[in-house]
Amino acid sequence: MDIPFGEIRSAVEERIQTLLSGFSHPASLYEPIRYVMSGGGKRVRPLLVILAAQSLEASIEEALNPAVAVEMLHNFTLVHDDIMDRDDTRRGRPTVHVRWDDGTAILAGDALLGVAYDVLSRYDGPRLGEMVRTFNAGVIEVCEGQAMDKEFEGRNDVRLEEYDRMIALKTGKLISMSARMGALLANGNDAQVKALERFGALLGRAFQIQDDLLDFTSTTSELGKRVGSDLAMQKSTFVTLTARDTFAPALQERWRKLMLTETPDEHLLAEMGSVLQEGGVLAAGESQVEALTNQALAVLDEILTEERREDLRRFAFWILHRKY
Amino acid sequence: MDIPFGEIRSAVEERIQTLLSGFSHPASLYEPIRYVMSGGGKRVRPLLVILAAQSLEASIEEALNPAVAVEMLHNFTLVHDDIMDRDDTRRGRPTVHVRWDDGTAILAGDALLGVAYDVLSRYDGPRLGEMVRTFNAGVIEVCEGQAMDKEFEGRNDVRLEEYDRMIALKTGKLISMSARMGALLANGNDAQVKALERFGALLGRAFQIQDDLLDFTSTTSELGKRVGSDLAMQKSTFVTLTARDTFAPALQERWRKLMLTETPDEHLLAEMGSVLQEGGVLAAGESQVEALTNQALAVLDEILTEERREDLRRFAFWILHRKY
Repeated sequence: MDIPFGEIRSAVEERIQTLLSGFSHPASLYEPIRYVMSGGGKRVRPLLVILAAQSLEASIEEALNPAVAVEMLHNFTLVHDDIMDRDDTRRGRPTVHVRWDDGTAILAGDALLGVAYDVLSRYDGPRLGEMVRTFNAGVIEVCEGQAMDKEFEGRNDVRLEEYDRMIALKTGKLISMSARMGALLANGNDAQVKALERFGALLGRAFQIQDDLLDFTSTTSELGKRVGSDLAMQKSTFVTLTARDTFAPALQERWRKLMLTETPDEHLLAEMGSVLQEGGVLAAGESQVEALTNQALAVLDEILTEERREDLRRFAFWILHRKY
Repeated sequence: MDIPFGEIRSAVEERIQTLLSGFSHPASLYEPIRYVMSGGGKRVRPLLVILAAQSLEASIEEALNPAVAVEMLHNFTLVHDDIMDRDDTRRGRPTVHVRWDDGTAILAGDALLGVAYDVLSRYDGPRLGEMVRTFNAGVIEVCEGQAMDKEFEGRNDVRLEEYDRMIALKTGKLISMSARMGALLANGNDAQVKALERFGALLGRAFQIQDDLLDFTSTTSELGKRVGSDLAMQKSTFVTLTARDTFAPALQERWRKLMLTETPDEHLLAEMGSVLQEGGVLAAGESQVEALTNQALAVLDEILTEERREDLRRFAFWILHRKY
């Protein structure tokens, strides 16, 4: 499937460059920031800010800075998470702490968050307070989600509900926040702000389950990072927890043996894929993703005309069908 | 000299506890934050926010949240700087990355910055935008200062002007920002905001030179970290740069030899102290600190009555005469 919204996406890329051109010295701080912000990525969050704003009749121009601010916040979390998780590749390139060093990555992440706030607060309208508070909650809850994720490492008794809570914070929050931010900057009323935030939250859950599935079903070149990396980290994910909780004893046994292998090769991954297929985990995941997406779209029906919700609908289907 | 403003200080400590009690889960995130925020410290920045606000007739109640927000921002920088500098003691206790680990310290620092913004934006008055933008500039410039400081490591040709620029960002900025924040929350006019910010900037410079001097003249137990730690890191400071730039050849030679020792003992530090004394570096530093403090106080004369500037004056003298 082609990546949609090419024009908006170009506008986002251009605005990122323009905004960053205001930050150059010291180079040891801003080079890594430019590096990480020009690494591409799907730009899911800024797109959602802009589409949500447009659905309430704001212009792209009004939405661009807050959209870029959210993308910067997202990238700040990636730079720091990659240090903590010792991930050395992101979007097909060395991560910041590998290309430079840990100290540089810590500091570049910090400054990037400062720049994100700076960009956000160039908005000078009546809803600034709400926008900043929305952003703050994003920063805090993403950290809470990451802390929970770290707590889960080395535990093998994580319940699916705990996982859901963690992932709602770590991933869902920035997606729901993006939609809420769009509604706020478009000066939406309470019902609109709440509905768009809810739309984002449901879509965010779908997005993350999709991510967990893709760790098994995608290819390394499509993902830009190694397929099976969650697995290699022995991470609790939707996939591994559902397998653990729902497999019948015989499949359970096969699955457990496969999970014991520390460095899975392609052959092993293929075998895991077929066990997951057989046990119905991939199908369960896919149908959950679809159900969540439909719920998300239903929320929009209450506040937007068919015409006004069309782009958000297209956005949701793109998320649903992405292969990376 | 006794620590002044005991009542305000207690109110700050209490407010820190009250605000943090709203953040508890996950414990792996908020325990380190509680640890670092309850480690004491001089509370120079929140005191200055409050005293500046009071000088323009705001109440302590109005000033407390922004004051705590600035202290949280300061502590965020300490937690991350300590990782980068591999410092293992702060305020007489293990640093966060030593007591826990690097990942925990990175994440706790990030969340602390988020909480700082959260606390700041509980203010809901007309100057919120300016306050947030002031805060943003603080975050960004402190990172710039730290990046410059890291660039200086391993260079032995740092010019005193470069050092001044670095230290104005790394340390001076949060002090000038504190005074500006106080003026803003008190709804000060332009002249008042500018003057208080200038007061803070001058005082901040005095504060940092004082810090550099104390690395040689204080004792480990007073400082809460090892005396001579700048030296051990071969850091460029006011002291080392002034020695390099002003010593006559003979003294220069003695100084250079002393500087070559990688792990200075008390005996060596005492000898360095006497070389610095002989070469006039300590005296030069002390007279600069005094001159800057007087300039800072002169700025206040233009905007405040004698009565209204009394507390800020006391604050400045405390900074000037502190031994730790």
